[in-house]
Amino acid sequence: MSVEQDIREVALRAREASYELALATRASKDATLRAMADALLVRGEEVLAANAEDIVNAEESGTPANIIDRLRLTLERLEGMAQGLRDVAGLPDPVGEVVRGSTLANGLELRQVRVPFGVVGMIYEARPNVTADAAGICLKSGNAVLLRGSSSAKASNAAIVAVLRDAVVASGLPADAVQLVPGESRDSVKALMRARGLVDVLIPRGGAGLIRTVVEESIVPVIETGVGNVHVYVDKAADLEKALAIVLNSKTHRTSVCNSAESLLVHADIAEVFLPRVVAALQASGVTIHGDDAFCGFDGVEGATDEDWEREYLSLDIAAAVVPSLEHAVAHIRRWSSQHTEAIVTEDLAAARRFTAAVDAAAVMVNASTRFTDGGEFGFGAEIGISTQKLHARGPMGLQEMTSTKYVVTGDGQVR
Amino acid sequence: MSVEQDIREVALRAREASYELALATRASKDATLRAMADALLVRGEEVLAANAEDIVNAEESGTPANIIDRLRLTLERLEGMAQGLRDVAGLPDPVGEVVRGSTLANGLELRQVRVPFGVVGMIYEARPNVTADAAGICLKSGNAVLLRGSSSAKASNAAIVAVLRDAVVASGLPADAVQLVPGESRDSVKALMRARGLVDVLIPRGGAGLIRTVVEESIVPVIETGVGNVHVYVDKAADLEKALAIVLNSKTHRTSVCNSAESLLVHADIAEVFLPRVVAALQASGVTIHGDDAFCGFDGVEGATDEDWEREYLSLDIAAAVVPSLEHAVAHIRRWSSQHTEAIVTEDLAAARRFTAAVDAAAVMVNASTRFTDGGEFGFGAEIGISTQKLHARGPMGLQEMTSTKYVVTGDGQVR
Repeated sequence: MSVEQDIREVALRAREASYELALATRASKDATLRAMADALLVRGEEVLAANAEDIVNAEESGTPANIIDRLRLTLERLEGMAQGLRDVAGLPDPVGEVVRGSTLANGLELRQVRVPFGVVGMIYEARPNVTADAAGICLKSGNAVLLRGSSSAKASNAAIVAVLRDAVVASGLPADAVQLVPGESRDSVKALMRARGLVDVLIPRGGAGLIRTVVEESIVPVIETGVGNVHVYVDKAADLEKALAIVLNSKTHRTSVCNSAESLLVHADIAEVFLPRVVAALQASGVTIHGDDAFCGFDGVEGATDEDWEREYLSLDIAAAVVPSLEHAVAHIRRWSSQHTEAIVTEDLAAARRFTAAVDAAAVMVNASTRFTDGGEFGFGAEIGISTQKLHARGPMGLQEMTSTKYVVTGDGQVR
Repeated sequence: MSVEQDIREVALRAREASYELALATRASKDATLRAMADALLVRGEEVLAANAEDIVNAEESGTPANIIDRLRLTLERLEGMAQGLRDVAGLPDPVGEVVRGSTLANGLELRQVRVPFGVVGMIYEARPNVTADAAGICLKSGNAVLLRGSSSAKASNAAIVAVLRDAVVASGLPADAVQLVPGESRDSVKALMRARGLVDVLIPRGGAGLIRTVVEESIVPVIETGVGNVHVYVDKAADLEKALAIVLNSKTHRTSVCNSAESLLVHADIAEVFLPRVVAALQASGVTIHGDDAFCGFDGVEGATDEDWEREYLSLDIAAAVVPSLEHAVAHIRRWSSQHTEAIVTEDLAAARRFTAAVDAAAVMVNASTRFTDGGEFGFGAEIGISTQKLHARGPMGLQEMTSTKYVVTGDGQVR
């Protein structure tokens, strides 16, 4: 049977399951989520054994150590996955929430109600914990999920999904609420991208290449996640202590994530005082600065090219420039930003207002680290990714963002 | 210069204009909308002369009379367009609305604020009034718009856009807030669909063929509008007087629109009483019934095939079947529906609850005509189309649906 037929079959089973899930009560979904968490721990050895297989294969094929680290499961990480499922159980049910409502002039009662999408496809790389996270968030939001993980995590994902499906069935919901997509080749991704009408939404999570492919080739609606070319602009009216802390934290707190800073812009009026301090502090933390002429006056700073302004380093590197005004900072950001997160450090209210209004991004920070663009930090309790598109969801996506809406209109015989 | 370069240029000008529009106050936008309305009437003869050109061309090329009617502008239609712009001026500004907000544990103030998309591309057919409607709705929601009308309305659209742009400039906003897309061939549509990063959202309005092409080929995010295979289900607990009125109104009030009914399902328990009445009433209104065996027992009813269950007639035709239960009605709708609008007629609360929960559509009507799925009827005051997709917007789209959001996070030096 072709991969396309395989995908069609799992998608149709997911659709059937989605009908039941859409009607499941919060109580039933929460009990299921807790059963899923318990099962992951009770059957932890099974999952860890499968994971060990993936690790051996990865080591044999010469996978880099940092990727192997992302792939590795431990008892602690399993406990984290279980806790994540319990946390989702504790969150309010987005399904059924009335978004708006009114009674029309003719007496019709209009309600816009949150409903699940139906069938969600997740295409993701490396980390097997995403398997449990995505299953939990989709189940709570009433969606059946098709999980297409990377082939490097094949055994781990299969074990996790087997455990979760058993728990779903034991709790009285349909097993096909959670399915692994068959096929390891690119063909299964292609088939998912063509499955319009069978799959309601595709969410790619992973490297820039994967995301670009899905965004450009899918005819199933896509929520784009993640690339962050994130800027910190230090205004002339900045508190320099705050600025230093925010630049350092944004760049060095965790370099491999999309909300870490990749570019620094400093207002010319404070360059003389601030540049020596920020260069020294960044270099002391092991950061390589790719700077414009002003920054290149300091030892160890490398010259920046357009590639540096454009790049998401995801490493201990930062591009840095001095700008003559806030407007120039805005223009630089408009040209190079990936519209994920942008920050200004300033004590000047007018500058803060101007920056937040003029900069077009999922999140704009005033006097705060860019690392706060995160579902957990925003208090959403769960996050399926950070949307960098403007349609449907923008920024960290929690349970609400995993729903659509339906208008329910109730009358007693009204006609036009 | 290639069409692709043309589109790139207009899109870049639209982007520049969008920066100003995003910051324009409601007062300035409303004054502009009223100036646009005034200008359409003051320069009405100019627009009508251009429209006469289009009409002559259409007649010479043998365009069907109903298409020519859609194309034709009159003083009355111009007044309608002007009134539409004034109505939009009277609506609240969606930009700046705080969708949610809270203060986080660390003192950060989090606000999710509505912002314009930026640049919106409209691809539409025939009716030149869409040109003014779309320009008004986009301007009010702070978006620059690229208008790609049909070549049959070329002169009319050019005249309308010239008038509107003059009014925009006279009001102090950038002319490029409203632009006509150059090029009449399919090439300009193709170039728009490839303009990812330059155009933020594409909205196709028109026939099923156009919409399918845009949805399948565009790499710019799309909001799908409009195909409606709309069902009315008459439950065994229906009030038959209401049912008759709703079926007739849903089918015959206006046949050419997406919210008109295309299929009728009747519960078997009431078939004996209801079928003679509904067949007679539909036929008296000139409706041809494409029925299952039960309906085929009546004179003049034609046998229905799968094509009938699937079709959006947009004419005085209706597919009709008797179903043994509400669950069978739901199953039929799940199989054939385009998820636009579905209706149940029933006095039974449990049946109404079951139907509204189980049927997945943009709008579900209980004891009301399907013709109510409409931005004007819903009280939105303006409508850019009816979304039949689940991402971003579902159902009638008003001003709010023409916006994205941005998180603004304000602190005093918070780091992680």
